[in-house]
Order: sequence, then C-alpha cells, then structure tokens
Amino acid sequence: MPDRLGPPLPQPLFEKLVIVGVGLIGSSLLRVARRKGLARVLVGVDRSMDVCARVRELDLADQVYDDAAAAVVGADLVILCTPVGAIGSVAEQIGPHLSAGAIVSDVGSVKGAVVASISPHLPAGVSCVPAHPVAGTEYSGPDAGFATLFHERWCILTPLEDADPKAVDAMNAFWSAAGSKVEVMTPAHHDLVLAITSHVPHLIAYNIVGTAADLEEVTQSEVIKFSAGGFRDFTRIAASDPTMWRDIFLHNREAVLEMLGRFNEDLAALQRMIRWGDGQGLYDLFTRTREIRRSIIEQGQETTAADFGRRTSPDAGSDQ
Amino acid sequence: MPDRLGPPLPQPLFEKLVIVGVGLIGSSLLRVARRKGLARVLVGVDRSMDVCARVRELDLADQVYDDAAAAVVGADLVILCTPVGAIGSVAEQIGPHLSAGAIVSDVGSVKGAVVASISPHLPAGVSCVPAHPVAGTEYSGPDAGFATLFHERWCILTPLEDADPKAVDAMNAFWSAAGSKVEVMTPAHHDLVLAITSHVPHLIAYNIVGTAADLEEVTQSEVIKFSAGGFRDFTRIAASDPTMWRDIFLHNREAVLEMLGRFNEDLAALQRMIRWGDGQGLYDLFTRTREIRRSIIEQGQETTAADFGRRTSPDAGSDQ
Repeated sequence: MPDRLGPPLPQPLFEKLVIVGVGLIGSSLLRVARRKGLARVLVGVDRSMDVCARVRELDLADQVYDDAAAAVVGADLVILCTPVGAIGSVAEQIGPHLSAGAIVSDVGSVKGAVVASISPHLPAGVSCVPAHPVAGTEYSGPDAGFATLFHERWCILTPLEDADPKAVDAMNAFWSAAGSKVEVMTPAHHDLVLAITSHVPHLIAYNIVGTAADLEEVTQSEVIKFSAGGFRDFTRIAASDPTMWRDIFLHNREAVLEMLGRFNEDLAALQRMIRWGDGQGLYDLFTRTREIRRSIIEQGQETTAADFGRRTSPDAGSDQ
Repeated sequence: MPDRLGPPLPQPLFEKLVIVGVGLIGSSLLRVARRKGLARVLVGVDRSMDVCARVRELDLADQVYDDAAAAVVGADLVILCTPVGAIGSVAEQIGPHLSAGAIVSDVGSVKGAVVASISPHLPAGVSCVPAHPVAGTEYSGPDAGFATLFHERWCILTPLEDADPKAVDAMNAFWSAAGSKVEVMTPAHHDLVLAITSHVPHLIAYNIVGTAADLEEVTQSEVIKFSAGGFRDFTRIAASDPTMWRDIFLHNREAVLEMLGRFNEDLAALQRMIRWGDGQGLYDLFTRTREIRRSIIEQGQETTAADFGRRTSPDAGSDQ
C-alpha cells in the first residue's frame, strides 16, 4: 500500500532530537522522525532499563540513554513524553544542560500545569513550546507505537507569550511533517477544550466500568458476556494507562470539575425525563447528538465503518 | 474468505418465518435465515411502503407485506423487530390471525415490558419466547443489516413460565444456527443486566455529547476537531436510532434509574478524589478497570485492534 506519510524531507528540520520517555507517543515520534528524516540524530531516553533495552532492540533511535541530563547536551529539540506528573522533575534535571537556542516541548494532555512546571527550570535562550498531539490508543510502551499515529490528527501548540516565533514555526513544521494538522491556542483554553473532549469522557468511562464491576445483582461474568450492547465501547478508553490518567486529572482539576458539573446537571435533567416519561425530550436529544457524529465523520476524525469495523461488521465477514 | 456462518442446514427449522419490522436487526435476520436455510418461506413485513420496496429490491424475503395481520397467517414463527414501543399494538393486530402451535418472539432490548405488552394478545396454543440478540451497529434500516451480525454474539431468551419447552428449544436452535450463543434468564434479570451493559452506557454517551454541544466557552467546531482524544468513542453509540432508544428508556425505567443511581454515587466519589487530589484512589480504580477490558477481549466479545482498528492503527497503514 502507498505510504500515507509521504517521502522523507529533503533535509532534516533539527540536528539532534531527544525524546524523553519512550512509550506509545515517544516511540511513535521516534518512528515517524526516522521515517520522515525529521532530525539528523535521534536520541531516546527512558529511566527504565527494560525500556532502553527494548528501544535498542527495535532500533528506534541512534542513541539510547537512561539519563536525561546527559542525553540533552547539544540537542536543538527536546520533547518530554513522560506522564504529566513527571515533567517538572525532568525539566529540573535537564535545565542546566540545555544549549542556548534549543526548543523544549512535550506531548502532555494538560498544558497549564505543564507550562507552570517546565518554565522555572529553563535557562535564558531556550524556547518552551508545549504541544499536545490529540492521538493515541489504549496501549502503552515502546512496542505500541507506530509511525502513522499522528497522521491527520490535530496537534495543539500552546507557546508561552515570550516564546521565539521562529521556535513556534519550527514546531509547526515538525508536527506538520509528522502528518498532523496544527492549531495554536493558550494553555488555559487547551485545558478547557480537552476537559470536555477527552478528560471527562475518560472519567465517565472509568466510572461506568467501575460501577459495573461492583454490582451484586449482576455478575461480572454477565457484564463481560453482554458487553456488546454498548458497555465495551467504554472499556477501551477505560483501559488506558493508569499513571498517565491519574496525572491528567490531578493536573487539570479545575477544568475537569467545571465540565463534570455541567455533565452532571445535564444527566440530572435526562434522569428526570426518564422518571416522568418525557419521550419527546429524550427523542429530541437523541436526534441532536446524531448530527455531531456526522460532523466528526465528515471532518475525517472518525471511520464510518459500522461498529468501528469490529469483526461483526459487513466489511469484516463474507456477506451478501 | 471462508464463510464464518458455515453451510446451510440440511433442512429448515421452520416452515414460514415472518419478520415484522425490517430494520437493522430484522433485515439481518432475513439475510442469515436465507443464507442458512432457517425457514422454508421468508416473509418481510414493514408498515413503511419505502422499506417494503427496498426489501423487494434487495430480495431479502420471498414475500413482502405492509400488513402484519395478513402476513402471519400460517406462520410457525413470527419475530417482532419493531421498536419496543410498537410491539404491543403489533401483537394486538396479529393475535387473532396466529395459528395454534406458532411461536411469537421479538428482538427488543427490554423484556419485562415486552412480555407484558405481547402476552394479553396471544391466543391459546401460541408460545411466547421473547429474545434479545445483544448485537447491533449505529446504523438503521434494511440496507444496514448483514448476515453475520449475530455471529458469536449472545442472544438472551426470556421464555414465559408457561411456554412450551419445545418452543424454547426451537428458538435456541434458531439463534444457534444464526451464529449466536444462547442464554436463558428471567425478563426481570435481563432488564437489570442490560441496564448496566447497554442502557446506562447509551444514556451517558447521549448525555456527554449533548453537554459538549451546549458549551459556550468551547465551540462545536473545537469539539469535533479534537474528538479523537476520547469523545468520539461516545458519539458512535450516541448516533443510534432515536426512536428505538427513547422506547428503551421509557420501558426499562426502573432498572435504568436504579443503575444510574449507582453510577451517580460512584461518579460523586471520583469527583471528590479529583477535588482532594487523591491520586492513589484514582490509580487504583484505573488499574481495576483495565482488567475488565482484558476479560472482554479474552472472551471474544471485542477486537484487540488498537483504537478499534480505526485507520490510524498500525494494521491500517504502512508502518515499520
């Protein structure tokens, strides 16, 4: 099949790219950086020796370190791909070793807290351009990554007000070359947008799976057997990395609680419609929500394959 | 590719099968019935003339009617595939025309209310064996169906206490031949199990999509753009048929409100963990929910393809 990522760049955008934290996102970045020739030298850093060994086996980087401070020397781009809760301490470790002119970025799902934890540690002359690629799967670790993860997905940049515009342009070029569509916004607005499009959906998915696991009238075996009725859709995102998600909720508390408050109000209204038999109210909401799905598909953020193209779908089996 | 449904039966299980309501489920039943030779004569009934015309074009049935009463004459199996709210009136229409020894079944997602609305209309000698195939997609109508929809999915039978055991056996054979795994339970237990595995998940999916649509700080365009962060998983089930789902909530009110109460309690606890920064509590829940996902995959009720095999997944694009 044709390579959706296109040919490598005629010349690299960066001399030395350091990826700190080689999980799903970090390893996907290394893969796409190599495939597209985004940097002359690729460096992978992970504090886990097992991950370092695996990165070598998979040949994802030219150099592999378990020490971020040593790795960043001479780098012109450092991207922190650790869970959000670890970003501050990594920034503190690498700060004194960064070269003037370097760009420090990240891929965290929360931006206000990340900016606050990175910026105090950066020396003068280093630009901070936080980024959030809105892409992922429910799997974790260096084996889970793939080069096309960011293809046609949005990447949000939240540069600090005093960031060098050239650094913002360079990060824009980097993510575009990785296949992403790029949008720039403030960290605060990012955190609000993601609270409703990602964080609260994950929270309620984790919650319904937890509720189902705790029932006494319905066995766990029944929940699993009959999950195809809708429940299983939630279990995918409720299988995401626990450390990453703990950190997201702790670091985007205000926006999550604000959006959760709205969700709860709306749910109370829906509950009341059911109790009082307001069929028209239910029908109206259920019709309105269909439109949003249509827009998401039209804008290429989703597949139209029935049932997500699971193996019961028409295109997955022989059918008339 | 090999036909996962296997060869047709050596001889049909029924003489005349009548499907009332030829939507996603009804048309899938006609398709699998023809493919597997489940009945000698296949009859499709729909009150919409457009649907009747389409059923003829697709050649889904041997006979097509817009009048259920006329269609059921001489049938030994009648399966009502209308929305739950319409089942009572269809049963009333067909009751006087049913032959002794016939089986009346349905495919509704609610069983207590269905039993109550069908049984008063059935003459003596007719067995009522309600069924619920736990399978579906977000699409509706006769074009949306396919023969493998029920393959490896569970079908729950909720026979009335006085049903002829031979009728229950016959329905078991019918669904097994359609590819399903069959389980028998009481209508009341069915309604509780489905409230947590299907009805409440749909309700909260509809709700979050509605909440997101109504925000003023975050535009609808932003919600759509950044939906890949989790939100889009909910939009699939929030795109399901509005009439069908209105009827489900109105007809399974008690069980839905009971399960929703538990969901709300658990969500309040989670909200409190976020407000007070209880990272350990969050981490523990998020770890526990991962296990349930694993069981669902192990038991063949889900695909392991990352991100549901959407086109950003490794197996969907060229990758290293």
